[in-house]
Amino acid sequence: MPDAALTYATQHHETTLNRLLELLRIPSISANPDHAGDVQRAAEWCVDYLQTIGLDNTRLYETARHPFVYGDWLHAGEDAPTILYYGHYDVQPPDPLGEWVSPPFEPVIRDGAIYCRGAADDKGQFMSVLAGFEAYLQTSGKLPVNVKVLLDGEEEITNPSLEEFLDKHAGILTCDAVVIADQDMISADVPVITVGLRGQCYVEITLRGPTTDLHSGIFGGAVDNPAQAMARLLAQLHDSDTRRIAIPGFYDNVRELASAQKSLMRDDLYGEAELRKLTGVPVSIGEKGYSVLEQVSVRPTLDVTGMYSGYTGPGKKNVIPATATAKISMRLVPDQQPDRIAEIVEAHLRAIIPPTVTLDFEVLAKAHPVLVEHDVPVIQAAVQAYETVYGNGPVYVRSGGTLPIVWSFQQVLGVPIVMIGFGLPDDGIHAPNEKFNLQGLQRGTQTTIHYLNALPGLL
Amino acid sequence: MPDAALTYATQHHETTLNRLLELLRIPSISANPDHAGDVQRAAEWCVDYLQTIGLDNTRLYETARHPFVYGDWLHAGEDAPTILYYGHYDVQPPDPLGEWVSPPFEPVIRDGAIYCRGAADDKGQFMSVLAGFEAYLQTSGKLPVNVKVLLDGEEEITNPSLEEFLDKHAGILTCDAVVIADQDMISADVPVITVGLRGQCYVEITLRGPTTDLHSGIFGGAVDNPAQAMARLLAQLHDSDTRRIAIPGFYDNVRELASAQKSLMRDDLYGEAELRKLTGVPVSIGEKGYSVLEQVSVRPTLDVTGMYSGYTGPGKKNVIPATATAKISMRLVPDQQPDRIAEIVEAHLRAIIPPTVTLDFEVLAKAHPVLVEHDVPVIQAAVQAYETVYGNGPVYVRSGGTLPIVWSFQQVLGVPIVMIGFGLPDDGIHAPNEKFNLQGLQRGTQTTIHYLNALPGLL
Repeated sequence: MPDAALTYATQHHETTLNRLLELLRIPSISANPDHAGDVQRAAEWCVDYLQTIGLDNTRLYETARHPFVYGDWLHAGEDAPTILYYGHYDVQPPDPLGEWVSPPFEPVIRDGAIYCRGAADDKGQFMSVLAGFEAYLQTSGKLPVNVKVLLDGEEEITNPSLEEFLDKHAGILTCDAVVIADQDMISADVPVITVGLRGQCYVEITLRGPTTDLHSGIFGGAVDNPAQAMARLLAQLHDSDTRRIAIPGFYDNVRELASAQKSLMRDDLYGEAELRKLTGVPVSIGEKGYSVLEQVSVRPTLDVTGMYSGYTGPGKKNVIPATATAKISMRLVPDQQPDRIAEIVEAHLRAIIPPTVTLDFEVLAKAHPVLVEHDVPVIQAAVQAYETVYGNGPVYVRSGGTLPIVWSFQQVLGVPIVMIGFGLPDDGIHAPNEKFNLQGLQRGTQTTIHYLNALPGLL
Repeated sequence: MPDAALTYATQHHETTLNRLLELLRIPSISANPDHAGDVQRAAEWCVDYLQTIGLDNTRLYETARHPFVYGDWLHAGEDAPTILYYGHYDVQPPDPLGEWVSPPFEPVIRDGAIYCRGAADDKGQFMSVLAGFEAYLQTSGKLPVNVKVLLDGEEEITNPSLEEFLDKHAGILTCDAVVIADQDMISADVPVITVGLRGQCYVEITLRGPTTDLHSGIFGGAVDNPAQAMARLLAQLHDSDTRRIAIPGFYDNVRELASAQKSLMRDDLYGEAELRKLTGVPVSIGEKGYSVLEQVSVRPTLDVTGMYSGYTGPGKKNVIPATATAKISMRLVPDQQPDRIAEIVEAHLRAIIPPTVTLDFEVLAKAHPVLVEHDVPVIQAAVQAYETVYGNGPVYVRSGGTLPIVWSFQQVLGVPIVMIGFGLPDDGIHAPNEKFNLQGLQRGTQTTIHYLNALPGLL
């Protein structure tokens, strides 16, 4: 059965690719309200697509903001296990636009990869898996397990509507395992199983000084400048020597690595050289006492993701800005609590701002860090599938990224979570010129077919 | 003769006002290349206007960027003195647009003032003076002195084409004194004569880290963030205790106030209370050991006028920015040299940036600080005119602002510079909701008529 499905997948690769290009052309930017219509359009496209590949009960679940897409195939029998496949059809904003070699929502194929916002994160990845379901269904007339598919429209905005959705519809998600393909491989031949994710606390802060922008000549010299007050504030948030986050209580609940987790860390595969090559930075800098791999995966961070104040257009403008704003993303690790982090960060900022400014503090997103147990049958089935397709077993990784929904799945469904993926570390997700290799699209489908085949014996 | 002219001015106030509104509607933003056509249109409007009020030889002098407007009336006789009146028809960018009560280039009259970008700086001010020339000419058929008018299109961008213009055309500017009406009064009844201006060195700096924006989860923790590197850099530019600029050599050529200049400082008219009222700041902050008035006028400053990095749109985006940019305005005082300041600032920044980033350094503008001698006849004539119109003699002030062309006039023409003005300190020049009081428009015209009348006896 895998053979017929694999042949079908190869023969229908171009159809899958063309469908992916169609979806990629929809700028489903969940963060930007101007694109709400595009997000909806992408959701409706996905419903049609789930129906096309042979799923039942395809529909939208509307939320206060962007809908979930659902479909299932539940004819494997009552005794057969059920897997829930999760992906997301929303994408990050394409900024900075000037950096794109080709327009962000006009996919082009160059050097064996599709360049487009969302190509790897996550449209290309979930399409590769769904093409596997399709190939299996079309060649066998059935799947070896029951399958539910849930596609998210709010992943990139940390799921503001998730609680509401789970309160109302958790019942439809009942399953024996969740499978997610949203991760990067180590390299084109070394796949990964993700066994941990960082959480997040994402805040936006604004410092306000003068009532309005002031003439920098007439008032300059006697007025504290909010841009400079912001600079002083941000400069205080790390210890300049240890590079630790200098917010009292920030590390209180950080769990040091257990030896079992530590033994999974493959510092030999990812260090200073790999970081420099992937990012172009001249030198790494991070928390003292931890390896590069630990810094980017099992240690918490604080990064300014955006900052603006005063005049940002061409040329000069002679003003003291009235306000300065910074967006700050903190990545959290077990057992940090996003609510608690938001509280101590706000309290600390309020304590250290100078009397010359006031502070607006807004939490834009919160997500819990996650750990998963890797030694479970449903993950070992993925290991087998990887070995068959790649000739290599996967590396177990703690990802530095965040998938907000995983923690909720653990809480609500209480089942194993299988995090695989077919992206490459240089795919530039969230960055300009995001890409997804055509090989990833094909191998994702092949891995899915083998995985489906291996599941019944293991679950 | 002043009486007839004054009557004419009153009767034609509405005509002058309507002409001003017409000019204000042209968004002549010299900093923004997208508005180059508007700047040109404003220049042509001004040429027509100079002709309408009775000047001769009206024309544009094109430059590499924005043209100068010229017109003259040279029939007062060879023995009569010649004054050169200088104003500027370009305006600051209107950003931040969201703060304007009414659109920045749709002038509206509220509470006795015209609200529009450029209302006070400088369109309203120069129109008030030109209306005085018109009234005198139309009622007397002549002026008591020879008059040249030069209107600048690059004042707000610190005159990149000035050297080229003066090299070619300094001959047409020969005169016995320059008069400029671009200053704020102390209050509606207390006029000023400006006896000094700060200079400027305006730079834009960009820090570059990663080759492109990076995913803040996947790379966060091991990569220095250019936004935070910028914050640390900017935070180091002032001594946190003395609030002095912490750049070696910055104060080397700062001349302390001579007692004659010190005695002109009216700390009783402008201090902490006035600053708070005008700006809305909760408390002033400036260089230790100097009064608020000294801080904003005779001491050098360093202000961030604009700053941006990463994602600045709505909501969140999970990136480590590739770059961070800051625009920095330094106001200079005698005898600081803008070239020298640019050099030491660049050298200092290059010396203190961390090895994780590289620095782009660009000088956007340079202007020399200026001092003028106030005890000269052509200024005493202005004192008389003020006394007649306002019932008060003026206060002599050192302005914290910059008029780049004044230093060049001093070098090239070697004549006294008379800096007057009819704006108010709350006019919000360079800020949203800029205004110019209708009373200022009328009194500017009246003062000009009396000034023209007083000049022949004094020059």
